[in-house]
Amino acid sequence: MQLESQLPEQTVPGNGRECGGPAPTPGTRRPGGRTARTRAAVRDAVLAGLTEHGYPGLTVEYVAAHSGVHKTTLYRRWKDVEGLVADALDLAGEDSWIPPDTGSLEGDLRALAQEVVTSFTDPAVAASGSAMIAAAFQSERAAEALRDYYIERFARCEALVERAVRRGELPAPPDAAPEIPADAASDATAHRGIDAGALVRSVSAPLFFRLFITREPVDDTVAEQAVAATLAAAHAGAFTAAGKAGASPGAAR
Amino acid sequence: MQLESQLPEQTVPGNGRECGGPAPTPGTRRPGGRTARTRAAVRDAVLAGLTEHGYPGLTVEYVAAHSGVHKTTLYRRWKDVEGLVADALDLAGEDSWIPPDTGSLEGDLRALAQEVVTSFTDPAVAASGSAMIAAAFQSERAAEALRDYYIERFARCEALVERAVRRGELPAPPDAAPEIPADAASDATAHRGIDAGALVRSVSAPLFFRLFITREPVDDTVAEQAVAATLAAAHAGAFTAAGKAGASPGAAR
Repeated sequence: MQLESQLPEQTVPGNGRECGGPAPTPGTRRPGGRTARTRAAVRDAVLAGLTEHGYPGLTVEYVAAHSGVHKTTLYRRWKDVEGLVADALDLAGEDSWIPPDTGSLEGDLRALAQEVVTSFTDPAVAASGSAMIAAAFQSERAAEALRDYYIERFARCEALVERAVRRGELPAPPDAAPEIPADAASDATAHRGIDAGALVRSVSAPLFFRLFITREPVDDTVAEQAVAATLAAAHAGAFTAAGKAGASPGAAR
Repeated sequence: MQLESQLPEQTVPGNGRECGGPAPTPGTRRPGGRTARTRAAVRDAVLAGLTEHGYPGLTVEYVAAHSGVHKTTLYRRWKDVEGLVADALDLAGEDSWIPPDTGSLEGDLRALAQEVVTSFTDPAVAASGSAMIAAAFQSERAAEALRDYYIERFARCEALVERAVRRGELPAPPDAAPEIPADAASDATAHRGIDAGALVRSVSAPLFFRLFITREPVDDTVAEQAVAATLAAAHAGAFTAAGKAGASPGAAR
């Protein structure tokens, strides 16, 4: 997997498809005590069940049989199938994944896009990620957990944008510039004026749109087009925090 | 709904959210004979059932009870629930919807984006469109029908790009220009060199991505950002047919 080859192995406890979909590889190293091991075993069983049967077919019995954890423990700690799926997503978000750092915004965006393509065109790993996205259609708790997962994951990805601004690849919008003296720009404020969240989502969106909405295939060409479109939009200043806050006061986001 | 107000009413037999999701309003005028009326009644019942119970809970019995069409007829003509869902999607694609024509590419893209936001933030119409997208996770035939629906729908949307090129808003890429003498450019070839399909998908993708993958809200501000990003990418030549065909020979799309 392209992303993994660019990262020290120990920083990728899952399978590296962290902006692609939440589906850590079963058998991943599990730090922590018995509680953590139990939680990870349950998570693996949930993913296996979602992959095999989908959300409508997932049962507490299946998870008990495949995790070796007693049914009464599952009911006491996770309550029901919704609770099991939500916790599997919460756990997927607790890894130490960091976004690619290739030295250029274009390279970083390309690595992210490639990660999505690789993840979802490999049937062995695509199924559980797809199953999580599908589960969110049927369970409000799964949908909330998926939202939290992606918000946190894309917040990590904003580091790409901060680095690009520091390298001078993405000048802050003119109207934001006076507020950011160059010598005072910290990691957290370097990209003020740019909606970094929208920028990093932009490269994934066309790929997920084809995979799960229009059901069209994705490949390297589609990924490259997503990179080119995002870069062009970023250079043109289309992802401005001002635009984000301006038109719709009180908008939830 | 914004789009409907821009179109002659008779061209919108559904609810106008045709790039947003396939969910014609029950009670729509039904031209044609008894067979067409039966098919539309069955389609309405399928949408009602998907909205009420989701794909896993949809049954032929439900469709019979809500369409007034006998179960044996349903089994004979549609075979099973998958066949019913696929035909409801096929029927949604057989309307006479045409994309917005506001006089500018920016206005047209904004109308498309607004349509998605309006459709999926109105609970009364969002449910059946979401249910179709959800059904595609569980039925390969539903997924195929959804793919066909969107391919055809976005093919209609390519007219936006053709008009923009004719108005000079989007010059054809330099390397494509020699092949297109101005006086020979027809509707079908005016946008040669531009991947019109990618361009029109680009404005919808970030909205669907938030709605159905990251489960984040969409609003006018997010829509406006999608329009700005797509326009900037289009002006920068990011949606080139050359790019589409170049990098990955034999890529399925």
